[in-house]
Amino acid sequence: MDGTQSARSSKGTPDISGPIARFAVATRAEALPASARRIAKLSLLDVCAVTLAGAGEPVSRAVRALVAEEAGMPEATVIGHPKKVPARAAALANGATAHALDYDDTHFDYTGHPSVAVFPAALAVAEKRGASGAEFLAAALIGLESTCRIGAWLGTRHYDHGFHQTATSGSFGAAVAAARLMGLSEERTRHALGIAATRASGLKSQFGTMGKPYHAGLAAANGIEAATLAALGFVSRTDGLECEQGFAATHAAAAGDPAKLCAGLGETFRFEHVQYKFHACCHGTHAALEALHGLRQKAGLKIDDIDAVTLGVHPRWLRVCNIEAPATGLEAKFSYRLTSAMALAGMQTGALSVFADATCRDPALVRVRDRVAVAADDKYPPTAAAVTVRTRAGKEHVASYDLEAPMSVEVKEQKLREKAEALVGPDRARRLWAVIGDIERRKVGELTALMAA
Amino acid sequence: MDGTQSARSSKGTPDISGPIARFAVATRAEALPASARRIAKLSLLDVCAVTLAGAGEPVSRAVRALVAEEAGMPEATVIGHPKKVPARAAALANGATAHALDYDDTHFDYTGHPSVAVFPAALAVAEKRGASGAEFLAAALIGLESTCRIGAWLGTRHYDHGFHQTATSGSFGAAVAAARLMGLSEERTRHALGIAATRASGLKSQFGTMGKPYHAGLAAANGIEAATLAALGFVSRTDGLECEQGFAATHAAAAGDPAKLCAGLGETFRFEHVQYKFHACCHGTHAALEALHGLRQKAGLKIDDIDAVTLGVHPRWLRVCNIEAPATGLEAKFSYRLTSAMALAGMQTGALSVFADATCRDPALVRVRDRVAVAADDKYPPTAAAVTVRTRAGKEHVASYDLEAPMSVEVKEQKLREKAEALVGPDRARRLWAVIGDIERRKVGELTALMAA
Repeated sequence: MDGTQSARSSKGTPDISGPIARFAVATRAEALPASARRIAKLSLLDVCAVTLAGAGEPVSRAVRALVAEEAGMPEATVIGHPKKVPARAAALANGATAHALDYDDTHFDYTGHPSVAVFPAALAVAEKRGASGAEFLAAALIGLESTCRIGAWLGTRHYDHGFHQTATSGSFGAAVAAARLMGLSEERTRHALGIAATRASGLKSQFGTMGKPYHAGLAAANGIEAATLAALGFVSRTDGLECEQGFAATHAAAAGDPAKLCAGLGETFRFEHVQYKFHACCHGTHAALEALHGLRQKAGLKIDDIDAVTLGVHPRWLRVCNIEAPATGLEAKFSYRLTSAMALAGMQTGALSVFADATCRDPALVRVRDRVAVAADDKYPPTAAAVTVRTRAGKEHVASYDLEAPMSVEVKEQKLREKAEALVGPDRARRLWAVIGDIERRKVGELTALMAA
Repeated sequence: MDGTQSARSSKGTPDISGPIARFAVATRAEALPASARRIAKLSLLDVCAVTLAGAGEPVSRAVRALVAEEAGMPEATVIGHPKKVPARAAALANGATAHALDYDDTHFDYTGHPSVAVFPAALAVAEKRGASGAEFLAAALIGLESTCRIGAWLGTRHYDHGFHQTATSGSFGAAVAAARLMGLSEERTRHALGIAATRASGLKSQFGTMGKPYHAGLAAANGIEAATLAALGFVSRTDGLECEQGFAATHAAAAGDPAKLCAGLGETFRFEHVQYKFHACCHGTHAALEALHGLRQKAGLKIDDIDAVTLGVHPRWLRVCNIEAPATGLEAKFSYRLTSAMALAGMQTGALSVFADATCRDPALVRVRDRVAVAADDKYPPTAAAVTVRTRAGKEHVASYDLEAPMSVEVKEQKLREKAEALVGPDRARRLWAVIGDIERRKVGELTALMAA
């Protein structure tokens, strides 16, 4: 499909639902680019690992208790619960659990977390319907791509106005994935998008509360509700996203150029540019941590040999992650000084467990922590950091890192497998990857069995 | 409570969630004014009748199929389905069914339908918890009043921007009713309102589709989801409705004077001003129908004696309900000329069944239909009509009616009982009223048993 299909409708509104519904229905699974499928599998490994690791979080427990109490047809696995529940309920709980740690992937085309909205919906519907792994992966990838494209079309104006795009854009992508797995026609898929248009919600003012992870569950559950109702003959608008007083118009969307939304749709996958988190702490610390981890390995630094450290970072982060002497594991996640010491000590900052109160009191770490100076300068992009480490022997080592720097898919895979091992243990991580890396030749039930185990 | 409690919070935003949560928790059931409870009971009869009558509509079937397929804990009755389902699911289906005929009550303080959002939520939670009728009625009335007050505070700007307040304002009132029935504290009720703030949605651009009635189900289900999660310890914002980038700020709300929202809260009930529909056709025809029905009875008019009829109405209705020669039952609902003939023939225009294709072909009706002249003039308010009926004997009878005219509660009760009889049959209507009219001394299970029967 190309941009020429994005004609204005007779009412003068752009046609968005049409191209997205055609993309959902007409794209052949075998025609999906191998590079996009490979990234989707990496995101699937990542979302499975963070979901399993987040199952004990308070928000996960609360939403899981809701669906466990309601019970119902045993259609889909709920992470952390021994019984299956209806797909719509499983998606609500698993979406919230997936985002509970805020450690999942991010897409900056639309500033949102695509995987935690779309995968829980696709996985629940695929499990219910006994879909093949290939069908599941194709539906999820198409839903993820729809989320990114619709999200970018809604634009930063929508985000800046106060809407959490993980929830809003995510609802549309989840609906697309569910609709494809249910075998809906193009017309019925448009009704599913129309239902999502009147069901989608989620506010950024909930950040800092359980509302944020809950939004991922809302998106996933909304998508299944919309596709299920559409399959049952529910008549909504077929242009509910883009019509006059539709979702975009009422939700402060920029509603950009539809040609841009449609350009290369079905051929190029913007989702491939998704970014992963490799450290279980504030995103603002990640560039410095990458530089320090790299330097330690390259120069063979040892924590007791460190004399002084200087970090060069963008000033925006000073109010975010510069707690000088953290006392708790949570505070440690927002401390340039302590996380730097942790990296130089060779600690696995991708693991949740290292962000413990005891870490804050470790004498060797505290000694180095107090020798870290943070020098903010807006010459650094917000995604970058420059580090200088001086040893007691007086030698200076320098390094820098930009999160925007290209990373090969092999390196991504290696890092994500290490992250999964840190989150769920080496054995379970290996078993997950054995199925996910080969998902196109497996049944979805093999994956859900591993998630339930 | 009075307006002085509506202080600005430390952040400069008005305090809305606080007064509403205190109203929800602190109001004693016995202290609720008898006049408000009486109106709430009339609305309950009305919503029960329109729900039972709407159970066969396509939207009711679709949403019911969703919850029937999911099944689950048998907590609450679903109208039109033999098995109970979880309360949240029952509220979704029953809310959509209640609004399917668009024949339920309307409140013009906020332009929305309060009863179809709040009663299905309150009834499902009350049934699940085995609440007394008195507890149920109190919670519903407090939820209905919260909907009207929050709706009026959000204002017509919110409505005009494209939000369907039945869905949005209704979600908050449904949350209040559910929270009270669950015995939540003031603090927990605030979290329920915060969850509703990020869950509420519903667009006017869905009017003319199944999306409109679905919105009532969304509001009811959102309210139960929010209160249930709050009861489970979910932490949201306690000011999610009114905070910076909260629901009001992001949803084009006027967010009027909080003192007005709070004035008399707990003492005077704006809900008492709710308006009922007494004719199963377009609201634009109702004033003329009231005038003609009254004239026919008073003057003893007979259809075969009618020579000519003139209707004076506001011009806005000409594009809405002036189909001159309707051919179908649906078209008949939008025809001044045919509905006038039907009223003069003594037909029960409160019944759904009279709006049939055959009615459009009845020779006696068609003869009078063709002698009705519609004279639009903006001297008439949109809620009013003036009618002149000339008999073959040359005598002229005149009457007028304004829907805004005060109507005694006794007349309302009589009309609503007749409407219920027309919708569900005299026997069932009598049994419903026997329980509802005495609900404060009954168990909620007696009512739900009658609804399920």
